[in-house]
Amino acid sequence: MASNFYPAYPPDLNDEQKEYLLTNLKDWSIAHGLAVRPATSYVPPEQDPSAALATTAPVTLFPSLFPQACFEQAKSVAKAYNELYSAIASDEGWLKEIVEELIEIDDFIADLWKVHLAVKAEGYVQPLNLGLFRSDYMVHVDPSDSKSSPTVKQVEFNTIASSFGGLSSQVSALHKHLRSIDAYPKSEPAIRDSALPSATSVPGLALGMAKAHKAYGDSASGSPLCVIFLVQDPERNVFDQRHVEYALNESHGVKTFRLPFGRVLADTKLDQERRLIYTPPHAPDRHFEVTVVYFRAGYSPSEYESQKDWDARVQIERSTAIKCPSILTQLAGTKKVQQVLATPHSPHLKRFLPDEAQAAEVLKTFAPIYPLDKSEAGQEARKLATDSKTAAGYVLKPQREGGGNNVYRKAIPDFLKGLPETHWPAHILMEMIEPPAQNNVIFRNGEIQKGEVICELGIYGACLWKDGGKDEEREVLENFEAGYLLRTKGSGSEEGGVAAGFGSVDSPLLVDT
Amino acid sequence: MASNFYPAYPPDLNDEQKEYLLTNLKDWSIAHGLAVRPATSYVPPEQDPSAALATTAPVTLFPSLFPQACFEQAKSVAKAYNELYSAIASDEGWLKEIVEELIEIDDFIADLWKVHLAVKAEGYVQPLNLGLFRSDYMVHVDPSDSKSSPTVKQVEFNTIASSFGGLSSQVSALHKHLRSIDAYPKSEPAIRDSALPSATSVPGLALGMAKAHKAYGDSASGSPLCVIFLVQDPERNVFDQRHVEYALNESHGVKTFRLPFGRVLADTKLDQERRLIYTPPHAPDRHFEVTVVYFRAGYSPSEYESQKDWDARVQIERSTAIKCPSILTQLAGTKKVQQVLATPHSPHLKRFLPDEAQAAEVLKTFAPIYPLDKSEAGQEARKLATDSKTAAGYVLKPQREGGGNNVYRKAIPDFLKGLPETHWPAHILMEMIEPPAQNNVIFRNGEIQKGEVICELGIYGACLWKDGGKDEEREVLENFEAGYLLRTKGSGSEEGGVAAGFGSVDSPLLVDT
Repeated sequence: MASNFYPAYPPDLNDEQKEYLLTNLKDWSIAHGLAVRPATSYVPPEQDPSAALATTAPVTLFPSLFPQACFEQAKSVAKAYNELYSAIASDEGWLKEIVEELIEIDDFIADLWKVHLAVKAEGYVQPLNLGLFRSDYMVHVDPSDSKSSPTVKQVEFNTIASSFGGLSSQVSALHKHLRSIDAYPKSEPAIRDSALPSATSVPGLALGMAKAHKAYGDSASGSPLCVIFLVQDPERNVFDQRHVEYALNESHGVKTFRLPFGRVLADTKLDQERRLIYTPPHAPDRHFEVTVVYFRAGYSPSEYESQKDWDARVQIERSTAIKCPSILTQLAGTKKVQQVLATPHSPHLKRFLPDEAQAAEVLKTFAPIYPLDKSEAGQEARKLATDSKTAAGYVLKPQREGGGNNVYRKAIPDFLKGLPETHWPAHILMEMIEPPAQNNVIFRNGEIQKGEVICELGIYGACLWKDGGKDEEREVLENFEAGYLLRTKGSGSEEGGVAAGFGSVDSPLLVDT
Repeated sequence: MASNFYPAYPPDLNDEQKEYLLTNLKDWSIAHGLAVRPATSYVPPEQDPSAALATTAPVTLFPSLFPQACFEQAKSVAKAYNELYSAIASDEGWLKEIVEELIEIDDFIADLWKVHLAVKAEGYVQPLNLGLFRSDYMVHVDPSDSKSSPTVKQVEFNTIASSFGGLSSQVSALHKHLRSIDAYPKSEPAIRDSALPSATSVPGLALGMAKAHKAYGDSASGSPLCVIFLVQDPERNVFDQRHVEYALNESHGVKTFRLPFGRVLADTKLDQERRLIYTPPHAPDRHFEVTVVYFRAGYSPSEYESQKDWDARVQIERSTAIKCPSILTQLAGTKKVQQVLATPHSPHLKRFLPDEAQAAEVLKTFAPIYPLDKSEAGQEARKLATDSKTAAGYVLKPQREGGGNNVYRKAIPDFLKGLPETHWPAHILMEMIEPPAQNNVIFRNGEIQKGEVICELGIYGACLWKDGGKDEEREVLENFEAGYLLRTKGSGSEEGGVAAGFGSVDSPLLVDT
């Protein structure tokens, strides 16, 4: 982690200043729905059986410092990333090779692929796809050249259930409000409105869904149309989702329902043309034709407890509803895809992003990831990994999804010495992202936590595209950047990690570096 | 209470309908700040020392039925009531007579009057007054003539700290939202948007304060201007106040501070021209000249624990800040004033509202109140009270402020028989308001309560006026209706009363009757 990169920040607060800031933060957040249902450690469920209590979402007291150039850089590649991942998701043949490498070691990926194959055998009936993506970055400062300009490096790319867009809009407004009421004492850099970009994630994500809803076309079943938010139940982060839902209702007049993943088979069915028909439990005489299924559930292996859950996923995938995301789009978001794109000299990026200038900009945001095999890149990696001087800038990770047992920096050469060379290819070598350290204060579960933090910037992208058929070109119908998210957590462990639960939503104070 | 006045309402809900309605109500309310800090019985303070939890404000699940003509009637007299009470507050000589009758039996009124006298002796320095009033009504149906049209009758007139304007705007929007998502099954009368009037109390009250702030003029001290919300601390109903504060900030660019009543002497001082200068504890180097002091505290005897609290009140009253309300305006809101206005054949209404048509409309909203003395009205009252047939429409109340020991209806004749006639004038006889019964469901502290309810409609009025000086006419500068509040509570006891705590905010479903 780079130290002394940022100026001293945030300003110290005396008791009266802390009281003023916190009181205003607590009141504004609840008045504006910057909220979560409380953790069970805060309010045991038996105390509040109807779940009517809420509390301020974990937030930073101050907007965190963030280099303006990095913020602009991350936003500038949003459309290219939409293009890239929508192209990957449309290239079943290419994805198949990726998936085949994972099937042996990852049951979840294997099961998702089976769903795809089953629907493919029958034939897909909806060529439109909606991606509401989020590309997550950290600021990276080259530790060997402290004078170099910071850049953003991608941590991961999310193709399913990218959350916090609803709260992001609110926390940005919160920090602007706190500034406007002089809750921030003077500091350097000054907290000024022009350096606090508004988060447009709520209108952006809602617009993405509205575009897909419209592109679906008229109701063919005769039933009115709706968008389904596929959700977990219970969901503590419900207000995050609701803000997007209300924007979709109010700004676009789109009818929405929340459908718990476990109720898909009970509340939906496919008609003869495989239109997805939703019947609300509270109005069993009414039926709605579903235009878009927006997944805020169904992304994690733990949610698929029995065959019924897989049947539910199949039912959605078979339907004419536009999936956000489809199975193939979900699979495009696996770590393995990120890895093969970010391998130096990789031919894959060019394949999906033929525009060279665009590809070059995207490439700059990759932290290089090397295989440890006998390829050209592998040979390079072996050199880097066995020399403790160069190894200091890397992390060694097992190829398997899910991580764990990472080996960091100077420990890598000795670790490899103890491992038969035939086992080396089971690992990848990734350049460490070196985010500059700074301090902030987090308000979470009614408690203040102060300390060194690192920030992760997410840029949302909305992309609506049509898969190419036999004689058709793939066609991107909508492609736009859809706001940002800044998440901030304790800089805790070397894993880039964080004391469990010590994370928060934030907004950037843009600075020149 | 009139029965069978309204049609059967609200519709019955099955479990799925109840779940849908409640889930949406709970989420929407928190997402939009229709909230309160939880009662200590719900969340003990030691569980949440930083007071970061919140819950849905007590609300009705359905908008309550309310006769459209009564709603219009109440709104139509709002400006006349502003005129009336601003005129009363400006007539010190008349108020003196009222107060003198109360001084012996009511220490609080006596102490308020002393504050006025002290400031008067020195000379008032601010001729402008702001009233943010709320006139509360119930629908009255003449029990002797069930075919007669219902009218509104005034329950009380509030000249200080009229609350719930902030939440009222939100609950009206909540019921409209629930209707828009079909959370209300079909009923008769139908819950349709055109019958759900929007509550404009937030913009209305904020506009009232903004007008006063502007009328105050430029800063004379050189310090920037601000409005003070004088508040209780802690305040569970803080979001109600915050919504008005945020509207004042955002729509009118007015700077505001919340000042706990107990900190007036610590955080304010008067300069040589008696300008009220506020110094925020969090920014002791900064000073603000106060244009308006909006009282959401200081209205109740229990808040004046020591001479220091009275000194605080004197400090505000002496200042050039526009008081909302002044001491005289607060005194104009005592029950005794309502009583003398509503006495049949009273000359007082005419005195303050010379416009005969206006006065006639206001008079229609009075429930007659009789003295039991030897005056003409008193003779009339004695006849009504001693005949059990006529007494059935009345309540006998002690003259003292604070109520208690009311005698109802047919019990009145026997009660008076047991009382020496010399003691009769210590009581007043008031016509019972007979609100029609209906049913509703209240969500409060995370619990559902269903039953017979009665509604109280409050109409906010904003009035800015200039007291007449020696050679000047009193002048009303601003006078407008400022939204409504509907409060609904269990019809419980005969006192018009309610099981303790069983009240809620509501919005009207306007019906023809």
